[in-house]
Amino acid sequence: MAERVVLAYSGGLDTSVGIGWLKDATGKEVVALAVDVGQGGEDMEAIRQRALDCGAVEAVVVDAKDEFANDYLMPALKANALYQKRYPLVSALSRPVIAKHLAATAKALGADSVAHGCTGKGNDQVRFEAAVAALAPDLTSLAPVRDFALTRDKAIVYAAEHNLPIEQSKKSPYSIDQNVWGRAVETGFLEDPWNAPIEDLYTYSEDPATPREAVEVVISFSEGIPVAIDGKPVTPLEAVQLMNTIAGGQGVGRIDIVEDRLVGIKSREVYESPAGIALIAAHEELENMTVERDVARYKRGVESKWAELVYDGLWFSGLKRALDVFIDETQRHVTGDIRLKLHAGTAVVTGRRSGESLYDFNLATYDTGDTFDQSLAKGFIELWSLPSKISARRDLAGQ
Amino acid sequence: MAERVVLAYSGGLDTSVGIGWLKDATGKEVVALAVDVGQGGEDMEAIRQRALDCGAVEAVVVDAKDEFANDYLMPALKANALYQKRYPLVSALSRPVIAKHLAATAKALGADSVAHGCTGKGNDQVRFEAAVAALAPDLTSLAPVRDFALTRDKAIVYAAEHNLPIEQSKKSPYSIDQNVWGRAVETGFLEDPWNAPIEDLYTYSEDPATPREAVEVVISFSEGIPVAIDGKPVTPLEAVQLMNTIAGGQGVGRIDIVEDRLVGIKSREVYESPAGIALIAAHEELENMTVERDVARYKRGVESKWAELVYDGLWFSGLKRALDVFIDETQRHVTGDIRLKLHAGTAVVTGRRSGESLYDFNLATYDTGDTFDQSLAKGFIELWSLPSKISARRDLAGQ
Amino acid sequence: MAERVVLAYSGGLDTSVGIGWLKDATGKEVVALAVDVGQGGEDMEAIRQRALDCGAVEAVVVDAKDEFANDYLMPALKANALYQKRYPLVSALSRPVIAKHLAATAKALGADSVAHGCTGKGNDQVRFEAAVAALAPDLTSLAPVRDFALTRDKAIVYAAEHNLPIEQSKKSPYSIDQNVWGRAVETGFLEDPWNAPIEDLYTYSEDPATPREAVEVVISFSEGIPVAIDGKPVTPLEAVQLMNTIAGGQGVGRIDIVEDRLVGIKSREVYESPAGIALIAAHEELENMTVERDVARYKRGVESKWAELVYDGLWFSGLKRALDVFIDETQRHVTGDIRLKLHAGTAVVTGRRSGESLYDFNLATYDTGDTFDQSLAKGFIELWSLPSKISARRDLAGQ
Amino acid sequence: MAERVVLAYSGGLDTSVGIGWLKDATGKEVVALAVDVGQGGEDMEAIRQRALDCGAVEAVVVDAKDEFANDYLMPALKANALYQKRYPLVSALSRPVIAKHLAATAKALGADSVAHGCTGKGNDQVRFEAAVAALAPDLTSLAPVRDFALTRDKAIVYAAEHNLPIEQSKKSPYSIDQNVWGRAVETGFLEDPWNAPIEDLYTYSEDPATPREAVEVVISFSEGIPVAIDGKPVTPLEAVQLMNTIAGGQGVGRIDIVEDRLVGIKSREVYESPAGIALIAAHEELENMTVERDVARYKRGVESKWAELVYDGLWFSGLKRALDVFIDETQRHVTGDIRLKLHAGTAVVTGRRSGESLYDFNLATYDTGDTFDQSLAKGFIELWSLPSKISARRDLAGQ
Repeated sequence: MAERVVLAYSGGLDTSVGIGWLKDATGKEVVALAVDVGQGGEDMEAIRQRALDCGAVEAVVVDAKDEFANDYLMPALKANALYQKRYPLVSALSRPVIAKHLAATAKALGADSVAHGCTGKGNDQVRFEAAVAALAPDLTSLAPVRDFALTRDKAIVYAAEHNLPIEQSKKSPYSIDQNVWGRAVETGFLEDPWNAPIEDLYTYSEDPATPREAVEVVISFSEGIPVAIDGKPVTPLEAVQLMNTIAGGQGVGRIDIVEDRLVGIKSREVYESPAGIALIAAHEELENMTVERDVARYKRGVESKWAELVYDGLWFSGLKRALDVFIDETQRHVTGDIRLKLHAGTAVVTGRRSGESLYDFNLATYDTGDTFDQSLAKGFIELWSLPSKISARRDLAGQ
Repeated sequence: MAERVVLAYSGGLDTSVGIGWLKDATGKEVVALAVDVGQGGEDMEAIRQRALDCGAVEAVVVDAKDEFANDYLMPALKANALYQKRYPLVSALSRPVIAKHLAATAKALGADSVAHGCTGKGNDQVRFEAAVAALAPDLTSLAPVRDFALTRDKAIVYAAEHNLPIEQSKKSPYSIDQNVWGRAVETGFLEDPWNAPIEDLYTYSEDPATPREAVEVVISFSEGIPVAIDGKPVTPLEAVQLMNTIAGGQGVGRIDIVEDRLVGIKSREVYESPAGIALIAAHEELENMTVERDVARYKRGVESKWAELVYDGLWFSGLKRALDVFIDETQRHVTGDIRLKLHAGTAVVTGRRSGESLYDFNLATYDTGDTFDQSLAKGFIELWSLPSKISARRDLAGQ
Repeated sequence: MAERVVLAYSGGLDTSVGIGWLKDATGKEVVALAVDVGQGGEDMEAIRQRALDCGAVEAVVVDAKDEFANDYLMPALKANALYQKRYPLVSALSRPVIAKHLAATAKALGADSVAHGCTGKGNDQVRFEAAVAALAPDLTSLAPVRDFALTRDKAIVYAAEHNLPIEQSKKSPYSIDQNVWGRAVETGFLEDPWNAPIEDLYTYSEDPATPREAVEVVISFSEGIPVAIDGKPVTPLEAVQLMNTIAGGQGVGRIDIVEDRLVGIKSREVYESPAGIALIAAHEELENMTVERDVARYKRGVESKWAELVYDGLWFSGLKRALDVFIDETQRHVTGDIRLKLHAGTAVVTGRRSGESLYDFNLATYDTGDTFDQSLAKGFIELWSLPSKISARRDLAGQ
Repeated sequence: MAERVVLAYSGGLDTSVGIGWLKDATGKEVVALAVDVGQGGEDMEAIRQRALDCGAVEAVVVDAKDEFANDYLMPALKANALYQKRYPLVSALSRPVIAKHLAATAKALGADSVAHGCTGKGNDQVRFEAAVAALAPDLTSLAPVRDFALTRDKAIVYAAEHNLPIEQSKKSPYSIDQNVWGRAVETGFLEDPWNAPIEDLYTYSEDPATPREAVEVVISFSEGIPVAIDGKPVTPLEAVQLMNTIAGGQGVGRIDIVEDRLVGIKSREVYESPAGIALIAAHEELENMTVERDVARYKRGVESKWAELVYDGLWFSGLKRALDVFIDETQRHVTGDIRLKLHAGTAVVTGRRSGESLYDFNLATYDTGDTFDQSLAKGFIELWSLPSKISARRDLAGQ
């Protein structure tokens, strides 16, 4: 039997041409794998058929939307994961779930290698290959666009020569990656970081400047996971989809940053993630109410590290696993309701309540009912300040 | 000569009554010190006169607005200081500058103690006393409201009995602290954290929901400090004042959180800090363009620690000083322009440019001019993934 | 029924007098609780009888040696817990287990408060009371020595007047706390930190300077826990006891440091912990062989925080719990053998082997069998250095 | 003029053959640079002559011993730099100083590239090339052993064919790197990590098991730097050399660990660093006496990061620079004397004294003179425990 390679297949030009290219370059049979992570667009069956038409020996479609939401987006939400404080890891989260299915498909169908359509200067190549290395260390990873220098121009020529069923009517000016957690958009004019994004870039979010009424929504969480919206029970996937609609309708979730790539360069990126931004805002405030101060302070460092690891392609690493158990432990009481006001690009918490609250009205109030013994503060402050006081005496003596 | 105490004097009921109260309780002469940190409101001379009328042996007014902006707000901006990711440390930043003048005045006027009007359950008592302990370890700190159980009701009676020149026409429903960096508002109905703030709470910011045109502003930084706005040179104080007007006019800078106090309880706080939120957003993005990835990643942990220390009253501590020199070193190249779009409560960066940029178009572009050697990625990914791969082999062997 | 207080009872002068003192001061019945954490010395039954003779209404003895080893020392070992890199938390680990039994006994016997014999300037008062607050928040903590200013002189007088069965033949010059994990010794002449400790201070360890033969021992770990020594299965308690004998016989485990107390002062402390120091050395090296680099690097920060939390009395805090689950996750593969050479105060690892090893001879060797592809390094180094290179270009251009 | 490459030249077989090899492979003129970092062994002039005899167009010798001690070892000492808590970065510290002279020599002599003799699986290749990239980003780095697959066997043949003046009487069984800070030894039988090191590996340290008298030494530091030993003023270099003699004579400073290399593999390493281990022990304890608790706690994390960065070849990175200014700030009061007892492989502090001490006898003592107000502790403990207490109430209510 011929050797086989499983290609992560999107249905687009690069990976369609990649099928033949891989076959030519390696002699292997190519299995195409299309993973549905909520990217929308074309029907998955049409994509499957196109892979076969382009020469794949087999073409497999996997609906991973719920798995993606349950096992990838919910951990990110519990980690309040924002790389560089801003980016909700849209593409970084989808790569490991796709890689998991690449590895599983390779094993099921007897392939010795996997392939992806990434270039050699982005993060996604690392995420795919590092994930595969951690799941199936004996598989080889191939990257035709990078390793065989398959440029777009060459791909168009190849597609024409081989009569591949890809329409190349007009090249989109945008390079896009999207899934249910958001969209990433790159395009030529954004490579000048002084240029502002234009409205045309966005599809998940409406123009925040359009006058409209604010909306309010109550999100109920259980142990860090959204379980109901306005009282209606939802799965994680439904929560994300519904919040994309509601928050996206208010222009929430647009991000424009200069980003530090793992490969050592800075790039300018535009994202939109209405559900991501809105859910994280809600989740953070519920933590403010239900998580102890010292846990919350330490968790902030864990969150940064978690986001960096996932950004850097180390989803399946040992450190990521250990951070996850830490985070899960912190979520045991993150249960309650957050009222969120969405308007004109903002997602603002206006109320929070929880049966697991650590907010104690009787300790906090300045009105009748105050149970806080103010006389305790004096001793506390004295000992709290003592190291500064002792070193001040030393320092002043030395002057 | 009688012993003396220097009281941080605001002109309000508590500290006005505190003058007599302190004198009665300790036999000391009371010196009143009013420090102008941009809190606005009454004329400082009127405040000075009232202190004398209430029995102060001396009354001193210090205009610390520029000092506050230069030496307290600019370090906070360089640290992107947001406690719990949200609160720009409005009151926490003013306490040390006031404490510094308390200590200096005590030394100049021969006092052996200082006093403040804080209660025993907040953070500010700690900030005042810890700062004084670090600057003048031999001064004693007094807190009449806390230590002598001076409640508001008792204060009103005392003021009436002693004919103090304080108008108590109608008790404001709000407890407010404000300075040029922002306002903190507490009030009874907010003590139920499910209740939403109302428009009436805010004075530095307009209602974000009011339809209006967006404005754009270009902020020029030099080594982390704003030096010009729309091309017009500004001092730090002017930058803050101007941004309060511009960003406040767009409803930017409102914050509503459940907060972890140093004294161990959670409280619900509402703040507004138009300049703080807008300037930090701009500064962070300029750092994204001009600071190395590893520096930026490490600095995020330093920022959290810095904000916690300052929140916790340790402005004059050794650790704060050491973090400051770290931060200053990171700001050497944070020079350039940020274009900020302000609208409906949002402050969004839409462009950045810098002669100190680390963004390299030729490395980042996917178009003509690309100088990034993609073949390097393969070796990088292999070694980057090697620990995961080795442990995967171990783990799979164990199954 | 009279109110009751449960007193942590050691059998010594302070707590023996404390029984009557507490009764006099509070009117409560005093229950004495003696917890055996391997402190050795007097028979526990004699201690129990003395408590009754001193006026306790009930006296309870708990053998917590195995619980202490299993639930307190083993987590400390997994955390390689050394406060200030040196101190294996001897007393800090015993306080929470004693506090747990205080709280349980109070609940079982209907007491509304607990008491301990600590002074007001040490760490142990915090550890007892913070632990009780976390386990039984409605119990009150009393500290007769601190709160009623019960000095040693007063205690001697009280004991004589009340004919308490305490021998005060000759006051020991040393203040000692000990348990199976080690000993802490304080004494007057050590309060000058330039004075060297003297041989007389130590009982768990022989003089390291005495000429003797080195011994070797092979410690087998399973998931971070010692399970056999020289092939003989051991419980955690047995492992600690045996290593105290073996390592103590070689003078291993003496510590002499200036320490940062939680209450804000520095103190000079002398400890000995033969088993602690030897087991941690062995455990760390087994981790070097079996734990991934990134996990190990992150764990070092977790270890420091863990040791600080436990030192600071926060054993039963939420953050300590969350760090524990992180640490447990890292220990899943810490299984294997360490050969330790013990001699003249040193515990040195001379060999390590593990079925869970991540050390790969074929990747590491420079001899025949090398499977490491050296050509990968070039690409790795280029991208690894790229941020430094880009910023160097910027910095040099600016000169 | 022909292009030129500057080769880091040791005088050994690999780099001697490398001269011709580089010339053949690149057509460049080869300049040999030998940097004296205290590695001892051959006379530097003999090495210089050999380079010329092997075909170098120029040969330069630089005595960098004082520079190495002042600018590389002292920062490491201030950072208490021990990678994996054990390894004092012997080779990792010498690479950047050699790279600095490579870059400077290349600039001075008009070379466009530099070269080193490292293989492709170690850390030193990264350290050389990353340092050069950060200092002279336009220089190219060559590595003949790695890039041209120059094995030892090929080198011997080449040397014989070209009559190079290298004696290859008997291959040493050890691969060694050494400088004034220590030695690193690798050898075949150590690649089985269960094998113990043998006495024959060591030259900087005597056998610790040999019976001998202990010695005591008093090391005086000024701002973190040793300035006198037993009262005799020393330069940093002299301090290191003297401590190598004294501590090495007692068998101090041997290290045997499984180490996490930057290139992703674990290796087994044996080092000796008598001065490094002894000076760090002394320095750490002087910090315990003179540095504030919170600074010391934070610095421990900084130290780990510093050691990792330097191990990972990022000496000249922006983050390393920023950590250095933090560390320097912490050293302002690290001035005083440490008495160290050296014996049988141990370096133990037995006394410390300092005019900058934060140890306050009157606060620490339990004897006459105690100025610590114990009544303050109660309030401190209550507020310190309050978060645990509040969450305990919540958690117990939920049961």
